[in-house]
Amino acid sequence: MTEQELARVAASRREPERCGPPVVGMVGAGQLARMTCPAAAGLGIGFRVLAGAPGESAAQVCAGTDLGDYRSLDDLLDFGGRCDVLTFDHEHVPGALLNAMERAGLTVRPGPDALRYAQDKRAMRERLAGLGISCPAYAPVSGLDDVAAFAAGSGWPVVLKAVSGGYDGKGVWVCRTPQDAAAVLAHGIGLIVEEHVAFERELAVLVARSPSGQGAAYPVVQTVQRDGICREVLAPAPGLPADTAQEAQRLGLAIAAGAGVTGLLAVELFETPDGLLVNELAMRPHNSGHWTIEGARTSQFEQHLRAVLDLPLGTPALAAPHAVMVNILGGDDPDLYSRLVHVMAADPGVKVHLYGKQVRPGRKVGHVTVVGDDVEDLRGRAARAANYLRHGTEDE
Amino acid sequence: MTEQELARVAASRREPERCGPPVVGMVGAGQLARMTCPAAAGLGIGFRVLAGAPGESAAQVCAGTDLGDYRSLDDLLDFGGRCDVLTFDHEHVPGALLNAMERAGLTVRPGPDALRYAQDKRAMRERLAGLGISCPAYAPVSGLDDVAAFAAGSGWPVVLKAVSGGYDGKGVWVCRTPQDAAAVLAHGIGLIVEEHVAFERELAVLVARSPSGQGAAYPVVQTVQRDGICREVLAPAPGLPADTAQEAQRLGLAIAAGAGVTGLLAVELFETPDGLLVNELAMRPHNSGHWTIEGARTSQFEQHLRAVLDLPLGTPALAAPHAVMVNILGGDDPDLYSRLVHVMAADPGVKVHLYGKQVRPGRKVGHVTVVGDDVEDLRGRAARAANYLRHGTEDE
Repeated sequence: MTEQELARVAASRREPERCGPPVVGMVGAGQLARMTCPAAAGLGIGFRVLAGAPGESAAQVCAGTDLGDYRSLDDLLDFGGRCDVLTFDHEHVPGALLNAMERAGLTVRPGPDALRYAQDKRAMRERLAGLGISCPAYAPVSGLDDVAAFAAGSGWPVVLKAVSGGYDGKGVWVCRTPQDAAAVLAHGIGLIVEEHVAFERELAVLVARSPSGQGAAYPVVQTVQRDGICREVLAPAPGLPADTAQEAQRLGLAIAAGAGVTGLLAVELFETPDGLLVNELAMRPHNSGHWTIEGARTSQFEQHLRAVLDLPLGTPALAAPHAVMVNILGGDDPDLYSRLVHVMAADPGVKVHLYGKQVRPGRKVGHVTVVGDDVEDLRGRAARAANYLRHGTEDE
Repeated sequence: MTEQELARVAASRREPERCGPPVVGMVGAGQLARMTCPAAAGLGIGFRVLAGAPGESAAQVCAGTDLGDYRSLDDLLDFGGRCDVLTFDHEHVPGALLNAMERAGLTVRPGPDALRYAQDKRAMRERLAGLGISCPAYAPVSGLDDVAAFAAGSGWPVVLKAVSGGYDGKGVWVCRTPQDAAAVLAHGIGLIVEEHVAFERELAVLVARSPSGQGAAYPVVQTVQRDGICREVLAPAPGLPADTAQEAQRLGLAIAAGAGVTGLLAVELFETPDGLLVNELAMRPHNSGHWTIEGARTSQFEQHLRAVLDLPLGTPALAAPHAVMVNILGGDDPDLYSRLVHVMAADPGVKVHLYGKQVRPGRKVGHVTVVGDDVEDLRGRAARAANYLRHGTEDE
């Protein structure tokens, strides 16, 4: 679409004449959109999702489902024309289309200038450096020499990261030798190299920021990853010193303001003996915040809607001393429902969230949350339930 | 439809061949169905509602909306053919149709034999008497003489209640004189007469019962009514002696078993100096249980789905020391959304649920829930929010 055509779309776009509550449109119909639906219903606002196919997770449950391709400007403009504010279930809408949507007069939150830092790891590292935020040491990569030069300073292993998108679903490679690095470079995608941080554990902080600048930070959580997949989230992070927690929340709010984020920002952090380092950013509801449905006074899904609508934010306070969330990964047997019965019978206090997604080995198909007083008890109960749902035994 | 035709429908009805989770169909698309949608999504089951019109509360948000008339057997059978289990948002489906649905092979929960006690107050009083449950004294009414004879024993005032349905939306009349009673009798509807109970306060107990007989009782709540409309629910009922609370839960479970209820049963009670008396029954999620969304580990909506699907029940335990729910009644100005902003700014801990219903003075258009430690503080906050949403001031 030409600039002229975009300008024509913008000029023809009028303030909706209907009165009443606004309509938020979420591009993408995965589990994040699915879990945003009830929050929208509670607020009494309109909510639409742009799904690629009718069977997608949110499309199964949301009355306001439109079908379209998030890589098609026509589809995005068409969808946007039915909504007052657009936001996202994922970060895959190309930056050029995000910019065109804004030029066509759509309200896009977060906007393209902010989303760029969630889409382009090199731009993110540069922006965070500009904000004085501590990150792992990194360098741009145009060939194997750059990796070797970086490793000469940091030592092996190093971490190669796709600047955007990744390759075959993977975007992070730990390389122990120049040969490992050469194999990644052979994919021919844009990369940066980072030091391999010897962290003590991984933390995450979720903050919300509204267009008028209000901010709110959830309690800092610990995330446990295995094979590059988030498996478990402990809220709040057990034994985290109060000053470290405050520092993480301060970092989250500073990045949200510095990057111009509207809506939610999830910041993944490494806790190291020398302090906190920022690993990754995401600008949407995030797996590390699923515990907030039961564990916080305001769920991350409601908070995201409040933020993108510039409504006053809800309190992010804990609703229980501890909450533990464990992801349910797909196993070999797709019949989750028959196993659900046993999980419910075994533990009437476990809260199960299924996403309606086709079961594939290793795919996130749901999560369980348990809240209460004793974090080790909660971890055991949540893991048993998630394991049973995965493959019919309580073991990992 | 003839018995033969129903038998043909039943015979042609096959076990669904698809595998995967079952589909629950809810007849009616009011706020109860709207709030059941997210519970169904969490469980990963299918969920459909039968709405009279596309704009109804649940139809706005639920992907599985079918349009039809709950007074039409054809529409009910058509809807039932797309579902594995049928349940209800209201008690208005005529008993003859409920019976026909069962004879046509549909799984109806609660079934017609139980629902009769929620639809016919005389049958309910007789059944409760048969179960040895204490109720207000009552008598059937066929004319003014019956009322006068009853009042000669109980004294005036007496309460006249419509056996079913009511007149002009009203079903309960407090009559202070024979003239008052004559005015009610003039409507020409079926009535019973009951003693006017000098209760100390009103309580409610919500229980779930599954087809295989599992039961679960929520903590007993206090309900505060004004002008015959539930305004406020306090969970748990403040200062209720433990033995009275246990007695109320025992009553609820006994009635559910004795009346053959599957799903939820709400029992409205009078607390009197001489003990508890059962006032009313409802067999569905109930206004007195809206607090469970935030205030209990398992919401009443999820519990109802678990019960009608014969899944193990969730724990009804409190999720906070106290929860207070206040209904939002419609005022003169329909623009709820602009007032929502101020409520959110004034109190970031209040949880608002709007139903998407057209605002009419006095109509229930939403509710607010606040959870925490100090019940008087919670009552003040919830009332201020609900009042502001109603008419833009914090006063009643």
